[in-house]
Amino acid sequence: MSDYPISRYPVPALEELPQDIRERLVTVQEKSGFVPNVFVALAHRPEEFRAFFAYHDALMLKESGLSKAEREMIVVATSAANDCQYCVVAHGAILRIYAKNPLLADQVAINYRKADLTTRQKIMLDFAMKVALHPAELQESDYTALQEQGFSQADSWDIGAIAAFFALSNRMAHLTEMRPNDEFYLMGRIPKSKN
Amino acid sequence: MSDYPISRYPVPALEELPQDIRERLVTVQEKSGFVPNVFVALAHRPEEFRAFFAYHDALMLKESGLSKAEREMIVVATSAANDCQYCVVAHGAILRIYAKNPLLADQVAINYRKADLTTRQKIMLDFAMKVALHPAELQESDYTALQEQGFSQADSWDIGAIAAFFALSNRMAHLTEMRPNDEFYLMGRIPKSKN
Amino acid sequence: MSDYPISRYPVPALEELPQDIRERLVTVQEKSGFVPNVFVALAHRPEEFRAFFAYHDALMLKESGLSKAEREMIVVATSAANDCQYCVVAHGAILRIYAKNPLLADQVAINYRKADLTTRQKIMLDFAMKVALHPAELQESDYTALQEQGFSQADSWDIGAIAAFFALSNRMAHLTEMRPNDEFYLMGRIPKSKN
Amino acid sequence: MSDYPISRYPVPALEELPQDIRERLVTVQEKSGFVPNVFVALAHRPEEFRAFFAYHDALMLKESGLSKAEREMIVVATSAANDCQYCVVAHGAILRIYAKNPLLADQVAINYRKADLTTRQKIMLDFAMKVALHPAELQESDYTALQEQGFSQADSWDIGAIAAFFALSNRMAHLTEMRPNDEFYLMGRIPKSKN
Amino acid sequence: MSDYPISRYPVPALEELPQDIRERLVTVQEKSGFVPNVFVALAHRPEEFRAFFAYHDALMLKESGLSKAEREMIVVATSAANDCQYCVVAHGAILRIYAKNPLLADQVAINYRKADLTTRQKIMLDFAMKVALHPAELQESDYTALQEQGFSQADSWDIGAIAAFFALSNRMAHLTEMRPNDEFYLMGRIPKSKN
Amino acid sequence: MSDYPISRYPVPALEELPQDIRERLVTVQEKSGFVPNVFVALAHRPEEFRAFFAYHDALMLKESGLSKAEREMIVVATSAANDCQYCVVAHGAILRIYAKNPLLADQVAINYRKADLTTRQKIMLDFAMKVALHPAELQESDYTALQEQGFSQADSWDIGAIAAFFALSNRMAHLTEMRPNDEFYLMGRIPKSKN
Repeated sequence: MSDYPISRYPVPALEELPQDIRERLVTVQEKSGFVPNVFVALAHRPEEFRAFFAYHDALMLKESGLSKAEREMIVVATSAANDCQYCVVAHGAILRIYAKNPLLADQVAINYRKADLTTRQKIMLDFAMKVALHPAELQESDYTALQEQGFSQADSWDIGAIAAFFALSNRMAHLTEMRPNDEFYLMGRIPKSKN
Repeated sequence: MSDYPISRYPVPALEELPQDIRERLVTVQEKSGFVPNVFVALAHRPEEFRAFFAYHDALMLKESGLSKAEREMIVVATSAANDCQYCVVAHGAILRIYAKNPLLADQVAINYRKADLTTRQKIMLDFAMKVALHPAELQESDYTALQEQGFSQADSWDIGAIAAFFALSNRMAHLTEMRPNDEFYLMGRIPKSKN
Repeated sequence: MSDYPISRYPVPALEELPQDIRERLVTVQEKSGFVPNVFVALAHRPEEFRAFFAYHDALMLKESGLSKAEREMIVVATSAANDCQYCVVAHGAILRIYAKNPLLADQVAINYRKADLTTRQKIMLDFAMKVALHPAELQESDYTALQEQGFSQADSWDIGAIAAFFALSNRMAHLTEMRPNDEFYLMGRIPKSKN
Repeated sequence: MSDYPISRYPVPALEELPQDIRERLVTVQEKSGFVPNVFVALAHRPEEFRAFFAYHDALMLKESGLSKAEREMIVVATSAANDCQYCVVAHGAILRIYAKNPLLADQVAINYRKADLTTRQKIMLDFAMKVALHPAELQESDYTALQEQGFSQADSWDIGAIAAFFALSNRMAHLTEMRPNDEFYLMGRIPKSKN
Repeated sequence: MSDYPISRYPVPALEELPQDIRERLVTVQEKSGFVPNVFVALAHRPEEFRAFFAYHDALMLKESGLSKAEREMIVVATSAANDCQYCVVAHGAILRIYAKNPLLADQVAINYRKADLTTRQKIMLDFAMKVALHPAELQESDYTALQEQGFSQADSWDIGAIAAFFALSNRMAHLTEMRPNDEFYLMGRIPKSKN
Repeated sequence: MSDYPISRYPVPALEELPQDIRERLVTVQEKSGFVPNVFVALAHRPEEFRAFFAYHDALMLKESGLSKAEREMIVVATSAANDCQYCVVAHGAILRIYAKNPLLADQVAINYRKADLTTRQKIMLDFAMKVALHPAELQESDYTALQEQGFSQADSWDIGAIAAFFALSNRMAHLTEMRPNDEFYLMGRIPKSKN
């Protein structure tokens, strides 16, 4: 267990939290075996916590034309472009698990153009990266490039909105100096049969 | 009334909207005399709409060490750095009103370092701009610079979180090609006594 | 009336000025109702003042394939890219008047690609912005893009030369910390019939 | 003699030119032994030609706290930062002659921080480069740094104005694809005694 | 075993190689259990292969004031800044092993300023990153910052030379589209006692 | 003879050097009439010296689809992009000699796109500059552009490897503050018949 602080802002004890937030932390603890630090760090501000996770769930948990692995690719690629330790490490773990691929998260984080992805997925990430890094330069041809890969208009919103939400999320992680749990680093790296 | 589209995505009619969202639109219409297009454009996705405005309200409406005008300065400066038409025009109007200053919003949008602000406000905006543009480069001296101006730890979270939230907001406006209402351009430019 | 200084360099009194410069200031005062601060700030150096306005007039007042509003679009777009408070505010006012459009200047300043312009005007501004920001990258295809919109060879010189002249002008405004007159902010924002 | 074009725009014959411009070309021919191409290329537009050289002379020929060699250092350093072939080659020659140093112009063009200059001259060039490349970031400490090296307020205007004027000049050279005369390349490279 | 190509250039069979290169490959195979792809990809050009590894060994294997883990930190941080898949993955593995720390390589690759490093190591990486990304901006204060942390003059050469060598190495990996061996991804992530 | 130091690190006397290095210096002295400072500065570290020149010779002296002048164009263009005084001055001299053209090196250093080169050579330099400055962005179309100009696969390796090697070389020159010999500045500038 790590001695490094989780956040540069105060971190509430479980018993101090409003009941709805406490219940969310208990649920995620039961499901994952640990509480990801983003829950603990953001619980310092309950109103913002609720809005943050409501937004997150609306984008990441719903039915979508994008698979859950594809959504995590967007998170990992854009968070790496923003040098965000928390999001690359935590969502890299989730990507490895959803994609059942122990190599993919590192590849996407370093340079998605050289990762083991389909052309369709790389074009999805081109769009997401433009939203993340140069959103004012979005132009018609960017939307057309998605259409040519079979992405619907709703998919383009999803891709852009996930990149936009993690623009917020990366900045909150930088602001709070949020530290990823040590558990994330190894998750999804070892094929099940070897465990 | 403008013939230009409000968004490149479908825009729902008032009667199609869930009741809570419809009520929010009616309330804002009554208060402002028109419905800002961000409400209409984002209502295309009710779940995301609710999270977006819950987050917005948690940051922009609550009690804070920052005045409402100061919070709008953060929005205008960072949105201008992101070339975001909707947010600069709409929040520029709000800044003029809160600050009771018809010149300030244009100055902050063009170059906040040359705007008619206090040194304290410029240092607040230095921090906000770093969160907006180079969040990975935040370092201890940035937080110390805020402290030296009398900003509390809670204030630093507010400044950073507003910049982070509008990183999201600017990207949604670019993604949807959101158009500001014509009404915003003139709001707050004419001293009350002259109207 | 504003208490802020017009320039960080000495500002001459009207009676100290050489006669030709004094006459120009009187003329502009009579025509506009006030003397724009650029005249006052640059009068500190009469030789440079004369060359500056001779150059300005040669580009901005002559017959041209570009309308006067189009020339001001170039000024506003490139000056905004250079974060130049004086030129965006002063020439924004002139653009609103020439274009008889109270919204256009703010749109062009924030992001000309999303402004209410024709395709031809946006391509004119693409060329101007390249001259302003990345002149070494000008290539044959940039000139061809202008031709395809019906711009003549003389027009391409005008577009480039206006962008080049305001590269100078913006830098002089930054160097001298030139402040725009308060009058500019509201000019051209209110339709005549409403006044 | 080179077969390459001097400019991508029409180049007037000497006899077509207005008398004052023709006389200037004859004078420079007599003094230098050739007519630098900038005179020929800009003579395409007599009004702009007159303003350009009036501005040039007001800055480069007058009495100043800066030596003529120092003024040319500003031209060479900022023009190299703008990748301007004409200005680096032509003003590099002039710098070698004024400074009586055959190495200095190449050093200043490549990286003035490693050139054989005094600390005072390097700080002069720091200021000039900021005006050339990031003028919106000028701040009080930049002016103070000049003062600490003994530069007067008038000198700071000169440094900034020369950088600003060559921001224009470099852009006109790029726009017109102005070619430097072959003669410039060797000028000032061979100590007099060896010729 | 991966079906993806190791390099976009021809890859020689072991038996085609000159004896000295074949022996090096056999040796590394025996020591590591596999042949890292950089050996195979660069063996396409035996002369360059020999110079490359002679340079590598001269910097990375010799006695130095920097520990082997510290040298690998330089490789990982600068290679990540260059988005180099091969070097981040392969040297990340080596860093985990030398540092006996399963978390450090990912942290250094994402953002070394937030990694679990000493201040001394972060300042070492500040210098290395400047050599990698902005070498023309090196100035006296950069060398002084190293001295203040106890680095000798020889150490500053080592830090800079490792960053310089991997500037070459990263570019060769990009040029050849060199693929890291799958084995690297998991190396050093599992504490010995758990295996 | 210049009084400026050759390097910020110790420079060995000829008699202190290992015999093979001493012989190389004597040979180059006899051939060129002087010892280029890169040999003296790097001799401080004999192992690195040997690897550096072995790599250099493997790329620059061998048979290749690129002429020796073309290889020097790559060195000059990429070294200028890195603001490297030593490499631009020294290899500029070599380029003038190989190309038998006194103008070309300055043109390539300032802006190769406007230099007196063939289209094929400019496309060669486009590729080299991408390897030098943005290697992670190399994509299939970059290799195809070379092929369309008749460059072989081996040529593309040569172009990329020379750019990569001088990425190292430029950084060593910056790190050591290596000074070019005064002799280089004039070499190749005067047609033989005039000497």
